[in-house]
This record gives sequence, structure tokens and C-alpha cells, in this order.
Amino acid sequence: MPDTLTEGDRHLLDAAIAQAEKSRREGGIPIGAALGTGDGTVLAVGHNLRVQTGDTTAHAETVCLRHAGRRRDWPALTLATTLSPCAMCAGATVLHQIGRVVIGEHQNYLGREDWLAAEGARLILADDERCKIMMAEFILQHPELWAEDIGEPHA
Amino acid sequence: MPDTLTEGDRHLLDAAIAQAEKSRREGGIPIGAALGTGDGTVLAVGHNLRVQTGDTTAHAETVCLRHAGRRRDWPALTLATTLSPCAMCAGATVLHQIGRVVIGEHQNYLGREDWLAAEGARLILADDERCKIMMAEFILQHPELWAEDIGEPHA
Repeated sequence: MPDTLTEGDRHLLDAAIAQAEKSRREGGIPIGAALGTGDGTVLAVGHNLRVQTGDTTAHAETVCLRHAGRRRDWPALTLATTLSPCAMCAGATVLHQIGRVVIGEHQNYLGREDWLAAEGARLILADDERCKIMMAEFILQHPELWAEDIGEPHA
Repeated sequence: MPDTLTEGDRHLLDAAIAQAEKSRREGGIPIGAALGTGDGTVLAVGHNLRVQTGDTTAHAETVCLRHAGRRRDWPALTLATTLSPCAMCAGATVLHQIGRVVIGEHQNYLGREDWLAAEGARLILADDERCKIMMAEFILQHPELWAEDIGEPHA
């Protein structure tokens, strides 16, 4: 797999964006994720559920992994997310030893890509305008909720 | 709060051990966690649920945080766990900015205490015999399940 965005990666990122849009429609935080194979076959999806269920560990990537069930092929899979993974989601990615992470954008928030890189995960930055606009709008409209989601003091 | 094990810490660790024992009785992985205040008041508990629910992100500490609900006082709280936190649980602790982590033991498994320490969390190693014996017995009896839980290749 190349270190640039492939057609398979784009397919997974589209699925992640659809999850983010679903969460936004539900009044939730618009971050989504999808797990799949190199050819873009989607195995599991998830989105942030903080607002919907009150679960503060329900970030998109972690929820997506939850939905993938028990399996042993994690290193061969790609995790696509609309936003740079936070410490928890980066840690979950390291625990599962997922080999490839497609990141929609990291302009609105830079997570722990340093942790992922240090553990040898391949990071592909899509720099996707849809992700950037959706997140920027949300942060502008809900600064307090956003601060809560990334563990920051009150906005 | 001192950097040594306090009475409050011991109370939280006892609650975490009770969770691990509960999981063991259920046929699950015997790791437990408890979140509480400095005086040992338990606010939430959790245990590993990989076997019980098939959720690979359901490590004890992460489940415990899930059960704590939406709150903003994380930095003032203590998270006690029977075993050194893995990458995901260490990441979740960093995301929530929990200030104090009581670790039952790290002889059977050393998680990402380095990540926690680098972020300024205070780590208190209890070096508890109950934790050590319970985990050692489990790993001996279920090497394959343990390898799966920590993201290692087949045992």
C-alpha cells in the first residue's frame, strides 16, 4: 500500500464522513470513522456518541473498533477518521496494532499522530475540505461541547 | 495528595479488585478498575468485557470511564486499576486528564506508563499480591485470550 491516499482509502473516508454527518443530524459531535480493507471494503463504522449516549469514551474511532468485534487481522486493516485521533483513539489504534490510518484533516485539531507515528502506523493525511468545513462549523457553534470532548478546560 | 498509596487509594483499588473478581466469575478477563475521589469515594467501576460482550475496546479502565458519565472534574479524580494500563486505557486517561492513577501491579504486563508519566499523571504502584496472583493465574490458563486482549500475535 502506498503512503498516499488510494481509491480504497477514499472509499473508507467517505464512509467516515457519512457517519459524521449522521451524528450531526442527531445533534451530536460530527466526527466519524470507518474500518476496512485496503480495497476500501467497509468492515465497521462508528461516530462520536458523547451527546447521544453520555459515554465520554465514545469517540468515533473507538466506537468503530467496538463495532468491529473480536478479530485478529487488525494489522492488515485501515482505519479512516474525519479528524486527527485524540490520545484515547490513537492509543486504541496502537493497542489493536492497526497498520494504516487515514486522517480526514488535522487543521481543526491535531491529535496524537506523534504516538501513532512512533509506533510505526502509516498515517495518510487526506486534507479533505468536507471534513475541515464540518468540524470548523461545529467548533464555532458549540465551543463548550468541543472543549468537553477533547478534555480541555471550559471554553 | 502524596505520591504513595493512601487509604483512599486502597479503597479504590479494593473496588477495582472486586470488579476483576466479578469478571473472572463471569468467565471474562480478570481486570477491574474504579474511579473515585481522593478520600476513596467510588464514583464508577468497570471490568474487562471482551469475553462477555465481544467489545475489544472494553478494557477495565475505559469501561470504568464510560460508566462515569459526562463530567468536568476528571483532573481531581483517581483511577485505580488492577493492572498497568494498555495504550488505549493510558490514552483515555490522558484524554480525560485524570491526575492520579493507582496501578495494582505491572509485573504481569507493563502498559504505557511512560505515556502517562510524560503527560504529568501521578502514578502510584500498589504492587498488590492479589492482583499479581489473579493475573498470573489467568495468563497461565488462557494464554491465547490474553494475547488477543493486548493485541499480540497468537500465543
